Amino acid sequence: MGESESGASSGAAAHGLDPLVLLSVAIILVVAKVGGEIFERLHQPAVLGELIGGIIVGNLALIGFAWLEPLKTNEVIAALAEIGVILLLFEVGLESDLSQMLEVGWSALFVALAGITASFFLGWGVAAFFAPGTSTLAHVFIGATLCATSVGITARVLKDMNKLDAREARIILGAAIIDDVLCLIILALAVGAINSVAAGASLGAREFGIIAVKALAFFVGVIACGRYLVPRLFRAAGKFKSRGVLLALAISFCFALAWAAAEVGLAPIIGAFAAGLVLEESNFDYFPNQDKYDLQQLLAPVTALLVPVFFVMVGARVDLRSFARPESIGLMLALTLAAILGKQACALGIVERGINRLSIGFGMIPRGEVELIFAGIGAALVLPNTQGMMEPVIDATTFSAIVGMVIITTFVAPFALKWSFKPRAGTETFTQ
Amino acid sequence: MGESESGASSGAAAHGLDPLVLLSVAIILVVAKVGGEIFERLHQPAVLGELIGGIIVGNLALIGFAWLEPLKTNEVIAALAEIGVILLLFEVGLESDLSQMLEVGWSALFVALAGITASFFLGWGVAAFFAPGTSTLAHVFIGATLCATSVGITARVLKDMNKLDAREARIILGAAIIDDVLCLIILALAVGAINSVAAGASLGAREFGIIAVKALAFFVGVIACGRYLVPRLFRAAGKFKSRGVLLALAISFCFALAWAAAEVGLAPIIGAFAAGLVLEESNFDYFPNQDKYDLQQLLAPVTALLVPVFFVMVGARVDLRSFARPESIGLMLALTLAAILGKQACALGIVERGINRLSIGFGMIPRGEVELIFAGIGAALVLPNTQGMMEPVIDATTFSAIVGMVIITTFVAPFALKWSFKPRAGTETFTQ
Repeated sequence: MGESESGASSGAAAHGLDPLVLLSVAIILVVAKVGGEIFERLHQPAVLGELIGGIIVGNLALIGFAWLEPLKTNEVIAALAEIGVILLLFEVGLESDLSQMLEVGWSALFVALAGITASFFLGWGVAAFFAPGTSTLAHVFIGATLCATSVGITARVLKDMNKLDAREARIILGAAIIDDVLCLIILALAVGAINSVAAGASLGAREFGIIAVKALAFFVGVIACGRYLVPRLFRAAGKFKSRGVLLALAISFCFALAWAAAEVGLAPIIGAFAAGLVLEESNFDYFPNQDKYDLQQLLAPVTALLVPVFFVMVGARVDLRSFARPESIGLMLALTLAAILGKQACALGIVERGINRLSIGFGMIPRGEVELIFAGIGAALVLPNTQGMMEPVIDATTFSAIVGMVIITTFVAPFALKWSFKPRAGTETFTQ
Repeated sequence: MGESESGASSGAAAHGLDPLVLLSVAIILVVAKVGGEIFERLHQPAVLGELIGGIIVGNLALIGFAWLEPLKTNEVIAALAEIGVILLLFEVGLESDLSQMLEVGWSALFVALAGITASFFLGWGVAAFFAPGTSTLAHVFIGATLCATSVGITARVLKDMNKLDAREARIILGAAIIDDVLCLIILALAVGAINSVAAGASLGAREFGIIAVKALAFFVGVIACGRYLVPRLFRAAGKFKSRGVLLALAISFCFALAWAAAEVGLAPIIGAFAAGLVLEESNFDYFPNQDKYDLQQLLAPVTALLVPVFFVMVGARVDLRSFARPESIGLMLALTLAAILGKQACALGIVERGINRLSIGFGMIPRGEVELIFAGIGAALVLPNTQGMMEPVIDATTFSAIVGMVIITTFVAPFALKWSFKPRAGTETFTQ
């Protein structure tokens, strides 16, 4: 009967969801929750548990669980993971408050710029040293992958230390959000440039100009959308009587901008982030008894299901065999060092007095979602190498090294941050 | 750049979500909500609006929107729709309360059995008359497709009339739930039988016995799960501190049983329904401050997004060209008549006195979700016809006719039901 079933399902693409996909999603959810729980009990971020759980499950195929192997490349699971990360960026956009960033102002901006610049060039250098044969654009992409600070992990540690109100904390968080926005713009430019080169275009000033104009046009379009279209749309939808209109409309808007971003050559997550950013509180006035926080509450169960699928699948794509060669471990350690040292440049960005510069540098260390998303996108892009052959921008070894870097920086940062906030004789003291 | 992008995405299955899928889901959600809103304002069920919206969008390809055509068979959208219907059946299972059914007892059971038997044989007869060349099992499947009453639509009409407390209403609702359970068992047997025959086995008493034993073993296993495994699982998970554990665990359980059902040759939705049925209130005691209603509340945003995808896609699969031939319209009208007349047999199942028999028969008319799910499953199954050639159990014409039947019965029932409850001279009067 097994044969007849698979025959029937392959013969009817429209209704042939492979039951193994259901089992895999069930396993992924259990792995994510068990992994997250273990790490939360160890006072570590849950996302690390999801990643490491994914690495374990993904490498079980090496010790006999061969049926797990095809699931790593299953189109439906990959789509669920990608929808998860799109909704995650939409949520981040909803939570990002431009006015909050402006409050810590120039300090946050300079801290962000210093950290990004140093991380970018250090990462570029490491990539060029370890893979001299690949295209310079690939090295640039790996440099860009090292830039963004993971605001979630930093915020969590600061909250546990009751330091969220400290000026250091607000600078770190402001800079982390600016990091996200700047890195997404860098990603937009990098993806556009890589797609142009892969299509055979040379990358002169003119081509780069076209990419920049496209990205700019997208952001102008999105802002126009936010200013003119969204209020009218929400006013009309606010008159709807049926249930679930707000959530459906918000997700439609997010998906439509994600599609539009892809259409102009940007990554879909940039559109999703922009969609979250332009959904202003005022648009929710049209929904009696509902506001932006209701939307985030309605989104929460959806993202609670789909976001862990993304992180478990990122972990599952780490091939432990790629660490068998010493240079892979070298690459991972070099990237980790570049990531940590790069963010110490943040201390140079501080323009005010009486700030604990060490804490700023340490607080910016953790890497997370954005790096993993960059790595995933890079793995799907191709570029000609110096011999003219097409190869992925991020190969399996680099992918594993980046995931390793994310795990190590996330482990290191909380200890460093706690240590830096300890009052010591002879150092600048810090008043809350 | 367009070319390079599609090249990059097809070369990387793991991260190549087609952006058009995002745009389609955005469109599907808007169509579902606008369609649902229009029908709710006309005091009709929202699901009709979703179906008709789907028919319109699905047939736009006929008038020039050719880019919509491939989306109808896109694997990811189909998977989202199928996950939607799996979660819908899980929700229905959670809401079904066995004790409530036992209260109206024998009346509900006899009403359900009479309606199912008459609808089944009338549907079988219609199918045999219109398609004499196809296998008898296909006729049986179409008969089974006519059986289940759509409890949602009936409940909605009764609620609008303030008649939910009437004994007639409780009998109708009890019978509708029994309908669902019996029809899912019939579906289990039918799918098992069709898969056996499609695999080349003849369908003797022995083969039918194996299918029945498999289905029985599944239900016994599920009940054992509910009795022994689920309480232990929930007790363990209740100790988890991280967020979203209850929802993730419940959905994992649902997906795991859906997979198990498919493994023994049943439809995944049967496993999902069974999972909802065995999640008893007592299991939620382990989650402090959370109960079954919290789970339904957490599930609601997820199903609010995915269930309309299913119904819009069902509508989109209706090919209006199939109604160009008069016999297709004939088939639709004959199936509709069989569906309406079949449920009038319900009046014969009433064993108590003082019940408005007309209302019972009319209240059972509306068909809905279960029929559409059956039609979708039948479209993915194949059987040898009388010439020995494999063909789908439900072809495009029959599929469109069944959707038409669902739409017509759903429109007719509210008017008939309201009319039957009107007090009239000379008829049995009805006291609330």
